[in-house]
Amino acid sequence: MKVAIIFGSKSDTEIMRNAAKCLREFEINFEAHILSAHRVPEKLEEVLKQLEEDGCECVIAGAGLAAHLPGVIASKTVIPVIGVPIKAELNGLDALYSIVQMPKGIPVATVGINNSYNAAMLAVQILSNKYPEIKEKLIDYRKNMKKNFIKENEGGVEL
Amino acid sequence: MKVAIIFGSKSDTEIMRNAAKCLREFEINFEAHILSAHRVPEKLEEVLKQLEEDGCECVIAGAGLAAHLPGVIASKTVIPVIGVPIKAELNGLDALYSIVQMPKGIPVATVGINNSYNAAMLAVQILSNKYPEIKEKLIDYRKNMKKNFIKENEGGVEL
Amino acid sequence: MKVAIIFGSKSDTEIMRNAAKCLREFEINFEAHILSAHRVPEKLEEVLKQLEEDGCECVIAGAGLAAHLPGVIASKTVIPVIGVPIKAELNGLDALYSIVQMPKGIPVATVGINNSYNAAMLAVQILSNKYPEIKEKLIDYRKNMKKNFIKENEGGVEL
Amino acid sequence: MKVAIIFGSKSDTEIMRNAAKCLREFEINFEAHILSAHRVPEKLEEVLKQLEEDGCECVIAGAGLAAHLPGVIASKTVIPVIGVPIKAELNGLDALYSIVQMPKGIPVATVGINNSYNAAMLAVQILSNKYPEIKEKLIDYRKNMKKNFIKENEGGVEL
Amino acid sequence: MKVAIIFGSKSDTEIMRNAAKCLREFEINFEAHILSAHRVPEKLEEVLKQLEEDGCECVIAGAGLAAHLPGVIASKTVIPVIGVPIKAELNGLDALYSIVQMPKGIPVATVGINNSYNAAMLAVQILSNKYPEIKEKLIDYRKNMKKNFIKENEGGVEL
Amino acid sequence: MKVAIIFGSKSDTEIMRNAAKCLREFEINFEAHILSAHRVPEKLEEVLKQLEEDGCECVIAGAGLAAHLPGVIASKTVIPVIGVPIKAELNGLDALYSIVQMPKGIPVATVGINNSYNAAMLAVQILSNKYPEIKEKLIDYRKNMKKNFIKENEGGVEL
Amino acid sequence: MKVAIIFGSKSDTEIMRNAAKCLREFEINFEAHILSAHRVPEKLEEVLKQLEEDGCECVIAGAGLAAHLPGVIASKTVIPVIGVPIKAELNGLDALYSIVQMPKGIPVATVGINNSYNAAMLAVQILSNKYPEIKEKLIDYRKNMKKNFIKENEGGVEL
Amino acid sequence: MKVAIIFGSKSDTEIMRNAAKCLREFEINFEAHILSAHRVPEKLEEVLKQLEEDGCECVIAGAGLAAHLPGVIASKTVIPVIGVPIKAELNGLDALYSIVQMPKGIPVATVGINNSYNAAMLAVQILSNKYPEIKEKLIDYRKNMKKNFIKENEGGVEL
Repeated sequence: MKVAIIFGSKSDTEIMRNAAKCLREFEINFEAHILSAHRVPEKLEEVLKQLEEDGCECVIAGAGLAAHLPGVIASKTVIPVIGVPIKAELNGLDALYSIVQMPKGIPVATVGINNSYNAAMLAVQILSNKYPEIKEKLIDYRKNMKKNFIKENEGGVEL
Repeated sequence: MKVAIIFGSKSDTEIMRNAAKCLREFEINFEAHILSAHRVPEKLEEVLKQLEEDGCECVIAGAGLAAHLPGVIASKTVIPVIGVPIKAELNGLDALYSIVQMPKGIPVATVGINNSYNAAMLAVQILSNKYPEIKEKLIDYRKNMKKNFIKENEGGVEL
Repeated sequence: MKVAIIFGSKSDTEIMRNAAKCLREFEINFEAHILSAHRVPEKLEEVLKQLEEDGCECVIAGAGLAAHLPGVIASKTVIPVIGVPIKAELNGLDALYSIVQMPKGIPVATVGINNSYNAAMLAVQILSNKYPEIKEKLIDYRKNMKKNFIKENEGGVEL
Repeated sequence: MKVAIIFGSKSDTEIMRNAAKCLREFEINFEAHILSAHRVPEKLEEVLKQLEEDGCECVIAGAGLAAHLPGVIASKTVIPVIGVPIKAELNGLDALYSIVQMPKGIPVATVGINNSYNAAMLAVQILSNKYPEIKEKLIDYRKNMKKNFIKENEGGVEL
Repeated sequence: MKVAIIFGSKSDTEIMRNAAKCLREFEINFEAHILSAHRVPEKLEEVLKQLEEDGCECVIAGAGLAAHLPGVIASKTVIPVIGVPIKAELNGLDALYSIVQMPKGIPVATVGINNSYNAAMLAVQILSNKYPEIKEKLIDYRKNMKKNFIKENEGGVEL
Repeated sequence: MKVAIIFGSKSDTEIMRNAAKCLREFEINFEAHILSAHRVPEKLEEVLKQLEEDGCECVIAGAGLAAHLPGVIASKTVIPVIGVPIKAELNGLDALYSIVQMPKGIPVATVGINNSYNAAMLAVQILSNKYPEIKEKLIDYRKNMKKNFIKENEGGVEL
Repeated sequence: MKVAIIFGSKSDTEIMRNAAKCLREFEINFEAHILSAHRVPEKLEEVLKQLEEDGCECVIAGAGLAAHLPGVIASKTVIPVIGVPIKAELNGLDALYSIVQMPKGIPVATVGINNSYNAAMLAVQILSNKYPEIKEKLIDYRKNMKKNFIKENEGGVEL
Repeated sequence: MKVAIIFGSKSDTEIMRNAAKCLREFEINFEAHILSAHRVPEKLEEVLKQLEEDGCECVIAGAGLAAHLPGVIASKTVIPVIGVPIKAELNGLDALYSIVQMPKGIPVATVGINNSYNAAMLAVQILSNKYPEIKEKLIDYRKNMKKNFIKENEGGVEL
């Protein structure tokens, strides 16, 4: 298990599923938890401790509204934390600002609003520094991305 | 000691001093701490436990940027928490959204940007429910506010 | 009767019902009024006077658009006022700013956009300072919140 | 006396002085008051009653932050109210939204941020419907505005 | 004919109809035109000239997006112009800013987003300065607004 | 004369000077006018007519606040109009929205806030379609931009 | 072929079709490509080189979210680039800012959110400097726009 | 050399220096380049190729305004890219949106506005997955952060 996906509410499951989809494309083991920085802080700490012991190398954390979850996780572990702002009110700006504007010394690697796929891709890139087989897949992924893009769009588009 | 003032950085001292000023006007005992939800979470919990034991009835918490402090405090105590968004970037909007948009069940009573005086006034109003002498002072305060306003501005203004 | 819920338009009833739901969970008596700072100011003053006589200890006020109602109430009573910004235009930002940015001396305790449940929870916390039986329920509520959260989410989540 | 200028704080005097300047250009009598919807509501009502008796035909009201003053005045008189959002925080957006987004039936004629001169000009235009001598001056003003603009800028500009 | 309603596109008809509805409540004659500052500037000038000759005392102008129409009208007549920002993109903020932020000397009396009813009410208030029978109706309208509000909402509300 | 620079107020001269600077770098003749869509519409039309007769191929128009100037010019000529939003209030967002959000059929080519240099560069690019000597200079400019950038920054930077 | 339309994703086809519609109205040849600055940069460069060889005189580029495509194209060619911000998140503000705020020396001519029709109209205006037959059509288009507007809206509108 | 710091303009040097300061605290080798996605794309590609050959494991990229640099780098390498939005206009919102809202498959790990220190800290955390000695230092850093925070702030604060 190298990556953990944590989010705060069952209602965010569909948004976060894209992170899982990406990790499966790269055959990277992950586990997913619904946890809350504010409702079950002890449980959160317990899970984070277990993650550290299990050698987890990346935490993807999604949250909406005041969106403290990614930042609180980042404060409780040195594992890199990737934050996904989830749109609930204010077009997701509340979540974006609450996640990205972390104070000095405790960053959260923020990705786009609702873009959990990119959070997972960032995790893949982080892991690829250490695991050559992931790097290889990543390079293949990029090649395929290109190839597929060209194939899908060759011959131009009729407007 | 009925009120605690907590904020995250020495640089916010001047902004938060207005809360102290207001509480002194009402002769309400308070203590002030610089604490961080992310840097010293155990210390924060320890202080909150002590506050609860000491019968603290209101916590005023000021923070800027991602501004998790008021929300984290609110999640760790049932004492009412009043949040002051402090302007650092984005005109204080990041702090405002991070404080006011708390999830269901764990509210923070948010006041205006940099307006720690109003946070203290809200604490005074909360305390006044229980302490008749504070209510009396509060009613006097309002009367004086009126009286002073009229005195200062009577005779109109030259433009 | 310890809490009053006041809002400006029948169309906000569904949003404000969550405040009532929360107060009922805590068996706190409340009354609800549709009143307008601008359309029936005398009626509003009359109701506020009656609330003060009846020993009301918290007013929850919801409003959208220019959202003056919570602030006007706050100026007419020393009872703590909790403001709920209701989304009508501009994603609720107009209401949020109109409620939270009150001038020095007359605060409104602002909660999240459309989040009347949290307004009621804040009222519960304020009352809990004075009424030990409410404090007990509040502590139980938090424990149950935790317990339920863990029960609902244990075993992780399939992504 | 045909126009009243009302604002909430001595600190806004300089901003509001431009309204006076414009009214003097048109030789329109006005009086100016520092009043607060929240601090001295009775005094405000008393002044408004007097204004109505004195035949005032336009109220210019300036306010910053939650900026309820123009709207509260509008709710207490049928005299047209012109609102000036004054910049204090959030670049004046809080004041702008609090003034312009009034509910159905009680409008405030809102002008640009800090633009009290335009508020007075609007008052002049409103009065000009009834007073032919003001209309004449207004038409002259526009002609002079044109003439001066051309004179000041003729010959182009060196860049 | 005392009021003109001008807007830029057939698609805004429903929004602007509320202005007509208000004027009919007050039995004020009006005419409505679809005109564009950019597409038919000469036609616009011609209509405005005619309006001036017909003694029109108020122009209500609605526009969305860059929303120049109200400002351009204001620059071509000294009749007071009331601007209605119509929501098309950006929640109507583009229209609001384009209408309210007029330069020195040429104000537009701006009302809330999509709130053409209030534009008409403002026109009524402006006319009431000169026409005692409108003032009377206006005072009655306010009384009825109060009465109806109380009647509709008496007995409180069930939450 | 191939390019005209038009802006609404002497106070914008410094911002607009960068457009002139760029045009001089390309030895493109231009003339500059201070004109206002609202204050001197006839003069504006007259100047535009003259520009068309003189074979002007690009108009650069800068404006702040409600910033109608570029759009009004675009409605009165088929010469391409490039708009420069000038920062006065709201960080220049009012000007940006008022310029870029033009209705169907009458575009303004908008550049960045206060970025009149880029407006001129866009004019250069537009002219380069027709004038090979400008295209050549443009290609050289780009090459020099590259060369200078590399020279200035080679050897890295000490942090 | 004088104009190229380039955008980043099949899902933007409907938005961009309005550009094609406008160009067909003017009988201007164009070709359309789906290309990505980030996914197929080499392909993009290849297409741009071919466009330059084919004498393309205007590139219309549409993009959403971080919307780098128009700016990257602008950096790789001296052909004028017209950018269309496409609304995906944040009401299109992310795309607008990413397109319009280009650095010194490499402008993108930005049009309104989702307004690809105006992008094409701007291309038409740019081409009209060089091709008298396009200029003629453009002048006719404007005349017809006027005529149709008047015909459609004559007799006023019933409200 | 494990980390590269790249930014687009000499004027951003002071902001980016905090990244260097952080990396030095962890004794991590880095090199810094001023490069531009738009001005010197070939040079950028060349540097990135060299970085990949040199085994660079993290790129920190800072940019203001349309801020394409971090995203363009991310599209050209699989090395994780950390983006720093630099405040130039719009309070840095243009840069923030342009960096964080990257399309599917090519993420940029975004940190707070002007917060290059946190970008470096994130790089440290990413490296710590692979290099135990960095992990150790990181754990020490966090411990010291705590210790220093407590020491600096013990005894409370005088308000």
